[in-house]
Amino acid sequence: MPLTLEQLNTAGAGEAARLLDGLYEHSPWIAQAALERRPFRSLAHLKHAMASVVAEAGLDAQLALIRAHPELAGKAMVSRTLTAESTNEQGKAGLTDCTPGEFAKIQQLNAAYNARFGFPFIFAVRGPRGTGLNRQEIIATFERRLDNPPDYERAECLRNIHRIVELRLNDRFGVEPTLGNRVWDWQEELAQFSDPGFKEKGQLTLTYLTDAHRAAAACIAAVMKDSGFDEVAIDAVGNVVGKYGASAQAGPHPNPPPAGDGAQKKALLTGSHYDTVRNGGKYDGRLGIFTPIACVRELARQGRRLPFGLEVIAFAEEEGQRYKATFLGSGALIGSFDPAWLDQKDADGITMREAMQRAGLPATVQAIAALRRNPSDYLGFVEVHIEQGPVLAEMDLPLGVVTSINGGVRYLCEITGMASHAGTTPMDRRRDAAVAAAELALYVERRAAQDGDSVGTIGILDVPNGSTNVVPGRCQFTLDLRAPNDAQRDALVKDVLAELEAICARRGVRFTTEQTMRAAAAPSAPDWQQRWERAVDALGVPLYRMPSGAGHDAMKLHEVVPQAMLFVRGQNAGISHNPLESTTSDDIQLAVEALQRLLADLAGQA
Amino acid sequence: MPLTLEQLNTAGAGEAARLLDGLYEHSPWIAQAALERRPFRSLAHLKHAMASVVAEAGLDAQLALIRAHPELAGKAMVSRTLTAESTNEQGKAGLTDCTPGEFAKIQQLNAAYNARFGFPFIFAVRGPRGTGLNRQEIIATFERRLDNPPDYERAECLRNIHRIVELRLNDRFGVEPTLGNRVWDWQEELAQFSDPGFKEKGQLTLTYLTDAHRAAAACIAAVMKDSGFDEVAIDAVGNVVGKYGASAQAGPHPNPPPAGDGAQKKALLTGSHYDTVRNGGKYDGRLGIFTPIACVRELARQGRRLPFGLEVIAFAEEEGQRYKATFLGSGALIGSFDPAWLDQKDADGITMREAMQRAGLPATVQAIAALRRNPSDYLGFVEVHIEQGPVLAEMDLPLGVVTSINGGVRYLCEITGMASHAGTTPMDRRRDAAVAAAELALYVERRAAQDGDSVGTIGILDVPNGSTNVVPGRCQFTLDLRAPNDAQRDALVKDVLAELEAICARRGVRFTTEQTMRAAAAPSAPDWQQRWERAVDALGVPLYRMPSGAGHDAMKLHEVVPQAMLFVRGQNAGISHNPLESTTSDDIQLAVEALQRLLADLAGQA
Repeated sequence: MPLTLEQLNTAGAGEAARLLDGLYEHSPWIAQAALERRPFRSLAHLKHAMASVVAEAGLDAQLALIRAHPELAGKAMVSRTLTAESTNEQGKAGLTDCTPGEFAKIQQLNAAYNARFGFPFIFAVRGPRGTGLNRQEIIATFERRLDNPPDYERAECLRNIHRIVELRLNDRFGVEPTLGNRVWDWQEELAQFSDPGFKEKGQLTLTYLTDAHRAAAACIAAVMKDSGFDEVAIDAVGNVVGKYGASAQAGPHPNPPPAGDGAQKKALLTGSHYDTVRNGGKYDGRLGIFTPIACVRELARQGRRLPFGLEVIAFAEEEGQRYKATFLGSGALIGSFDPAWLDQKDADGITMREAMQRAGLPATVQAIAALRRNPSDYLGFVEVHIEQGPVLAEMDLPLGVVTSINGGVRYLCEITGMASHAGTTPMDRRRDAAVAAAELALYVERRAAQDGDSVGTIGILDVPNGSTNVVPGRCQFTLDLRAPNDAQRDALVKDVLAELEAICARRGVRFTTEQTMRAAAAPSAPDWQQRWERAVDALGVPLYRMPSGAGHDAMKLHEVVPQAMLFVRGQNAGISHNPLESTTSDDIQLAVEALQRLLADLAGQA
Repeated sequence: MPLTLEQLNTAGAGEAARLLDGLYEHSPWIAQAALERRPFRSLAHLKHAMASVVAEAGLDAQLALIRAHPELAGKAMVSRTLTAESTNEQGKAGLTDCTPGEFAKIQQLNAAYNARFGFPFIFAVRGPRGTGLNRQEIIATFERRLDNPPDYERAECLRNIHRIVELRLNDRFGVEPTLGNRVWDWQEELAQFSDPGFKEKGQLTLTYLTDAHRAAAACIAAVMKDSGFDEVAIDAVGNVVGKYGASAQAGPHPNPPPAGDGAQKKALLTGSHYDTVRNGGKYDGRLGIFTPIACVRELARQGRRLPFGLEVIAFAEEEGQRYKATFLGSGALIGSFDPAWLDQKDADGITMREAMQRAGLPATVQAIAALRRNPSDYLGFVEVHIEQGPVLAEMDLPLGVVTSINGGVRYLCEITGMASHAGTTPMDRRRDAAVAAAELALYVERRAAQDGDSVGTIGILDVPNGSTNVVPGRCQFTLDLRAPNDAQRDALVKDVLAELEAICARRGVRFTTEQTMRAAAAPSAPDWQQRWERAVDALGVPLYRMPSGAGHDAMKLHEVVPQAMLFVRGQNAGISHNPLESTTSDDIQLAVEALQRLLADLAGQA
């Protein structure tokens, strides 16, 4: 009989501790301390309580916890002195069946890792889907993590320990993240479509209107149809649009639609993009497509309708990879399609118009203009997205509620000093362009940190044709400055540019700046943000509000309807635009449940 | 009748001021103030006195001096309201014969220059040889200087004013730098030899043992023979060696040679290199070849010999451009030729051995080893070199005595942090490799400045594959650290590497360093440095001692014989390894005279 939360919450201290024994390898103190925080509202609540105990326990206790774990495919396994659960996990990953070469390789990695960090390599080998990684994946991860900074790697081990515990808890409570697994599998299916030149290398690249991109759209449309949507269509820019109609009777809606049948009621718009950057991740965008599809699928399975329609859109283009037309898909819905884009050529000289025609789209300004939505037809827009950053992972939180999509400004800058001989030019007679840029880099770091939630980055930094023995005469760099609202962003930009001017004046060098991007901040609509907050709280997940540093389709919809976003924790410190981008079935499960709660809330059923 | 220094030194104040009237355009106060520093020991002394008056007069007076000058080819010239001397100078440069297009171009430049700097463009149009630049050269210089930082350009105008005054003084005193002109013309002749691909573009590039390089060697040999050397030969590595024998009678030598005829007496070794960097300057190295040739030529013309022999060597290779064999020419004299170099290939796959064979050299280890000198045959080594830095120019000094050739260490470094999304990674969660490098760059600047005469440079700085919206995960850079002695250099290196380690530890990033060069400092032999000091002082030039930031052939000879160097001021803020490298006939004249004085001093004739 699987354990229940009720049992755990009502058991005496000793009994409760026994119920959780063995979750954290040879470290019963964690569960014991967490139990003092009973009652738990959900497994997510319990997991976070235990992770918090570890986070608060200090470095020595954390190291002891890590060191309580056996080495991967280590002597303990060979001599069968592992705990039953460790044996089970390493067995699922096939580590009990290593070839002699793999075994030797892992031993070598174990030795190198231990020498570098002083603790064993911890890896949740059952993986993000819970079904076990293969030995090649494990070895590749091991090799990659050997390169991490020590404090980062220590945190990564703790996160892997929490993941191991999560899987053990699922087993013990007889819980499976079926909706998360469903979304996971859809994402795997969609990731099979990749542009030529990348697919062969096992890389995911899906750019606007390539054959692979059109096949991916057809795949999404098929998933929608299969999930019970009433209408599924591909629109004039390649967006996949699925509609699930409202119930005939108006429900107790907080913003009641006009009387009439379901077709006339306002709809909730949601979705995200399915294109990717080059060699990108499987979850960026796509998680926000499949999460609502899973919700519709559940509604359809149960024969239920909501008192409002659901319109799920898989946007065809957000990343601006093939054409410089970022947010084309969501932009088309608000009438921001630039007709000049049709004549833009890709790297092979194919215009967007030609690409659209080849894809069977009408490729006319009129057809695209007709995609513009009437805002009064919609309640609002919500978007689920992988965080693409390290915050939730570092806080051991599966979900975060977005307060605002940051506004940003980008500049391309150049400082011109005077190139001179590195040996013969005394320090007080230099006009070193690179040191001037270095001074600005430190200022940007300090000034952005001062705001708490602003960010400032010099991502490109180069001394063109620099030589070891020449004082840099030129230095080129970029500035990327973002903040949760436009006033804060503008103050940041003003200070940074003023400092650039002051540095250059003081150093007798010159500078140029060219603004290459300017995007307004998109603060979440307060009532919609609160709906996400109530949904997250109802799952027993500690509420965490955060700005979105990256741009999202919601920025476009923001211009015409209220919007709010939900973030899902990323694995690997939230890396994104990278094949290592990942999340887990368990976190996706929570995202689906959060959206279900938001829908129920909106329907007045919460 | 030309003016004499005697007249000037003995005239009453009013009369003396009249004698110098008009030197500084409409600014008689400068000569008047300088005259209070009489008596002048030389024209160089007078020039420096006047330049010092200007330097000490403050910004307003300096701007007034600059603004007292007419615009180039300006309305004043057209309306003939220029001073007679300005008319003469602008006429010599052909500016009175501008085509309408040139005239319009210059007016446009005048307007742009005045708008940018607020004063007229001042350029000594009679040029470094005193014979007048052509209109194309003038326009090119005008365009280039428009890009200078304002404070730099103000100083450049003042330096050009001093140069105009120098030429006016020469006219007034009936003085011509004939030895300087002689050396100047030899250098022009030698600069005709340039490697294919560069010569066509009017660029000077002379790399080891190319056809052009061999022709240049033949040219130097011819100049030596023509100048009265007793023996001239090209040795096994391509060095041109000229010998001028000692007098038969032993003179009152400070370090008396053993008794015997001239051939057995010790010789003074001097010289520098004739190869160049790519698109280099005409004076780097070569000035140190032709200056002693001019001295020998004067001795031979006068039928004089010194109580010691003179051996002047034009080293074939110093810059390490075609092969990585820096200082090959001077190194061969001390036995530091690495036999493995013979198998080194150039960019076209030609080995050094093959290049030597094509050049008619023996190309054997034995022949090269035989070049090794017996240190006891030599009194010491002196080298004249263009400064290749801004110090003498900024101090209005034509000559500087070198105290030491700085020791240097170079490193290739890389910092590895973690690449992450510039929007989604909060400032306090970054491992930005570039900001870590920036912090080091500012430390290097501060730490080197602390020593006064150390220098530290990050010449290469790059974020590989950086993107505007990605926090830099890697940053590559070089370190070039130099100091006048090894202990000071090592302390600098130690502090910089310790700071790199501290920065990286604090920021949780990693670093690697690879030492790519390590050269010991070569402090001047005190008695030889003093000989240069006495020679410079005897010319009435204020004495200035300075380290050499660049490496020179003297570093190699330093290992076996006492050495000391003399620096000659460079034009254009001392730019070097660049076609703008330049000096003046007047400064070269002083260098020749300084070497003549050193020789006389050494001969006990001073």
